[in-house]
Amino acid sequence: MINKNTIFLLLLVFIPISIAGHFLDWGATTVFITAGIAIIPLAAYMGNATEEIAVVVGPNLGGLLNATFGNATELILAFIALRGGLIEVVKATITGSIVSNLLLVMGFSMLLGGLLYKEQEFQPTAARVNASSMNLAVIAILLPTAVEYTSSGIGDKTLQQLSVAVAVVLIFVYGLTLLFSMKTHSYLYDVGVAGMEEANAESPEKEHKVNLPFWIGVLLVVTLVVAIESELLVDSLEEATSELGLTALFTGVIILPIIGNAAEHFTAVTVAMKNKMDLSVSVAVGSSLQIALFVAPVLVIAGWIIGQPMNLNFNPFELVAVAVSVLIANSISSDGESNWLEGSLLLATYAILGLAFFFHPVVEGLG
Amino acid sequence: MINKNTIFLLLLVFIPISIAGHFLDWGATTVFITAGIAIIPLAAYMGNATEEIAVVVGPNLGGLLNATFGNATELILAFIALRGGLIEVVKATITGSIVSNLLLVMGFSMLLGGLLYKEQEFQPTAARVNASSMNLAVIAILLPTAVEYTSSGIGDKTLQQLSVAVAVVLIFVYGLTLLFSMKTHSYLYDVGVAGMEEANAESPEKEHKVNLPFWIGVLLVVTLVVAIESELLVDSLEEATSELGLTALFTGVIILPIIGNAAEHFTAVTVAMKNKMDLSVSVAVGSSLQIALFVAPVLVIAGWIIGQPMNLNFNPFELVAVAVSVLIANSISSDGESNWLEGSLLLATYAILGLAFFFHPVVEGLG
Amino acid sequence: MINKNTIFLLLLVFIPISIAGHFLDWGATTVFITAGIAIIPLAAYMGNATEEIAVVVGPNLGGLLNATFGNATELILAFIALRGGLIEVVKATITGSIVSNLLLVMGFSMLLGGLLYKEQEFQPTAARVNASSMNLAVIAILLPTAVEYTSSGIGDKTLQQLSVAVAVVLIFVYGLTLLFSMKTHSYLYDVGVAGMEEANAESPEKEHKVNLPFWIGVLLVVTLVVAIESELLVDSLEEATSELGLTALFTGVIILPIIGNAAEHFTAVTVAMKNKMDLSVSVAVGSSLQIALFVAPVLVIAGWIIGQPMNLNFNPFELVAVAVSVLIANSISSDGESNWLEGSLLLATYAILGLAFFFHPVVEGLG
Repeated sequence: MINKNTIFLLLLVFIPISIAGHFLDWGATTVFITAGIAIIPLAAYMGNATEEIAVVVGPNLGGLLNATFGNATELILAFIALRGGLIEVVKATITGSIVSNLLLVMGFSMLLGGLLYKEQEFQPTAARVNASSMNLAVIAILLPTAVEYTSSGIGDKTLQQLSVAVAVVLIFVYGLTLLFSMKTHSYLYDVGVAGMEEANAESPEKEHKVNLPFWIGVLLVVTLVVAIESELLVDSLEEATSELGLTALFTGVIILPIIGNAAEHFTAVTVAMKNKMDLSVSVAVGSSLQIALFVAPVLVIAGWIIGQPMNLNFNPFELVAVAVSVLIANSISSDGESNWLEGSLLLATYAILGLAFFFHPVVEGLG
Repeated sequence: MINKNTIFLLLLVFIPISIAGHFLDWGATTVFITAGIAIIPLAAYMGNATEEIAVVVGPNLGGLLNATFGNATELILAFIALRGGLIEVVKATITGSIVSNLLLVMGFSMLLGGLLYKEQEFQPTAARVNASSMNLAVIAILLPTAVEYTSSGIGDKTLQQLSVAVAVVLIFVYGLTLLFSMKTHSYLYDVGVAGMEEANAESPEKEHKVNLPFWIGVLLVVTLVVAIESELLVDSLEEATSELGLTALFTGVIILPIIGNAAEHFTAVTVAMKNKMDLSVSVAVGSSLQIALFVAPVLVIAGWIIGQPMNLNFNPFELVAVAVSVLIANSISSDGESNWLEGSLLLATYAILGLAFFFHPVVEGLG
Repeated sequence: MINKNTIFLLLLVFIPISIAGHFLDWGATTVFITAGIAIIPLAAYMGNATEEIAVVVGPNLGGLLNATFGNATELILAFIALRGGLIEVVKATITGSIVSNLLLVMGFSMLLGGLLYKEQEFQPTAARVNASSMNLAVIAILLPTAVEYTSSGIGDKTLQQLSVAVAVVLIFVYGLTLLFSMKTHSYLYDVGVAGMEEANAESPEKEHKVNLPFWIGVLLVVTLVVAIESELLVDSLEEATSELGLTALFTGVIILPIIGNAAEHFTAVTVAMKNKMDLSVSVAVGSSLQIALFVAPVLVIAGWIIGQPMNLNFNPFELVAVAVSVLIANSISSDGESNWLEGSLLLATYAILGLAFFFHPVVEGLG
């Protein structure tokens, strides 16, 4: 079995390499690639630290912490890109994160899990509530664009107002889903949480000796380094992608989410191979939901405050991509059963979307 | 518990007020609002009278009567608006009625019911047949617009022919759904009907002493008054909405359906709080189905006959709204279970759609 | 009971009639209609011969043979039309085959089966895997068009590259679905296969005395005649449809698929009336899947090789038609139960789509 921790430790060497690359002018592409790789273990450590702290502060506050910082890497990366004015890249990363969690992460989980077990089962009620929440999120993200396209144009100011209003509704709904999954109907999600604790605990005893100050320190240091690396990534992004012959749309939708979601990806696939499909699906779908119901609206509001107005007017093809991803993910997950073919179908959808984004011509405002 | 009958009696006072407002020139806004409120109890009485008559004439003819006159208020209101040439408002009311029944009525029912009961169940087979019927209806309403948009334009005459042909198919399908739910597969719907009778009966004995001539009289008088009030509402609509700063699209999609569906709304929420979710869902979905499969096609054919040709070429944003409403309503109702979060998701979708319609700019031909 | 074999024997007389019509100049319409009718029994014999050979060569190779040649008629017809440059007609036939299998064939099966049996059941897991595969296929077929429409245009060369790449993914997925249904999860499909053998066997003994050289001979002769008749059909198509006042779009989407799928249609309805709904649904959905995952991509690659580049850029209305067909077919089939109303809903959808295609104006490049 591959040892996750060893790999992550080795990848840390890319932190000094990327910083050196930046100051010694090794070229934008080198900085972009090394900073991208450096973020992968950092995202994993950030996740670990959050979970360790969550254990100490108790299930309620801990769950909230987990839910809020679970996608902290994406949030930091997106915020820095937003501050740098790369608004279209940020939007592309949002759609790309949703698509890659639902298709790539869930697809590999179901495929690899399905090669070991003929049929895998997970809680269908939770899967269906998640599917409906995801539908709402997609509808919310789709509507401002739909208003823009079905009218003679509504003007940037109105679009911004509508986007902020929709963002407020989404954050409110996110709060409701937390209340539902942690308080009123937590029993539907018990298997997932139990599995999560088990999967993270290397030995049962160790779990109870959490050193709170240590982990808070880890969280702060890692957050700082992620910020630094995100700066390098964002600064080098435009030059690097044009050197590599990639459009900024492709980079935002395909490359960046693979970097940002690497840790979730690893977790989801590992637990799927241990036949804990409940947890695997909940990591993949939960991560998508967090992006759609929390990260995206927070960025809309943050952008509005810092004067880099990010509205929810997406490239229509991104909306098509998100809509079809949610459609096929729901169609596959709603019965609470999975097999290797269903995983393959998700991956094939991802491959086709990847091809389509690769061939999609540069859109004005992007790159 | 709030007494429904007392409220409705009090609201009757708005009938003379709205008429006085019209003749004493109190302004269009006053007439519009008071006529709107006056219609709410009238719609409820019309529903009661229809059901009382239905009890006497027996289950078959009675069921047909109920199914046909269940949305009589909407039909009268829409017909008068159609005669007045407000074709786009009529179309907006159709989409708005579907959307508000599926999202607002079903949403409040599931939310308030779900606050009292952790999980509520309803017959999934009937829910799925209804969902498929609703899908057909949406497809039918969508296609003429799709033909128009995917060609270089098909001309008003062809569009009208296509709309009438589609309307005939829809009315035929409506007949088939009645045959299915009342004759061949009535056992799937038994819980709903039993609950309906129980919910309406204030005491078991009273139900059997129906005074047929009295209720036919009530029906005639109420129908007459609804016509009158609908005239006031339609006459004052354009001026009132522009005074209130609302677009005619927003009025048609959001305001008018709330007035027209107030009675169903009250019934659906009340029975949901009594844990009769079968009946609650069937009122909300059934009402949407009646609009889509019966009211809309009847208006198309009526408009064609009275020379106010109403085709099925909708504003694309209305189609988006109907499609997403049906999508999320199906995704939530198809498993035969509901909880408060699912209700909240429906309401959040309604809120987001309401915001989008509020910000949607005035479309030519509307207001 | 109608005797299938007698009807097919009688229809063979249209082979010499259509050939005579061609050489004696009886007019394009006559040749078109008679060649169309002549193909119906030929398609049935081709299916029989393939199945008989399949029995001899064993389940694995035989299954592959069946899966590959199951839509041989459509493939030959489409290939000849493609070689003749009727690219838009070929695309229309692809969408039409998918639509007519899902709506017309499955609709009649569920309606007629449902008139005899109150509720009919079929394997829901297989139905859901098929539904998800169908979703993937629709997404794949939709994306190139979506790329074209959401950009400022991507050029024919890029569109062709994207189409070929998507086609390769689809054929790979088709291989995976065969592996799934014949090897790793064949038990989910057992009922269907057993029913198929039973339905085809006129007597149990006869089945074991398959004359392999005879059936290979039949297959070769029938294939040759189908080619000939397809030539006649394609040659006379443009003139005949314009004489009949039909657009080429309508012919491709509605008329040709009815000819090509007549045999599947007969089988699916017959077994539905024997309450073998598993087999009936699997014939209808399986045939659609073969078109989408195998026939369409093979034609894309074949067209690219023979220099008649057929890309996957469809008329948007065809995509709407395929998408709504898959939507309603999935919504009806995913619960593993059917009744007469569900069949009627599929047929009503087909009727409405047929009306829409009838009224859809001639598109440039078509006819």
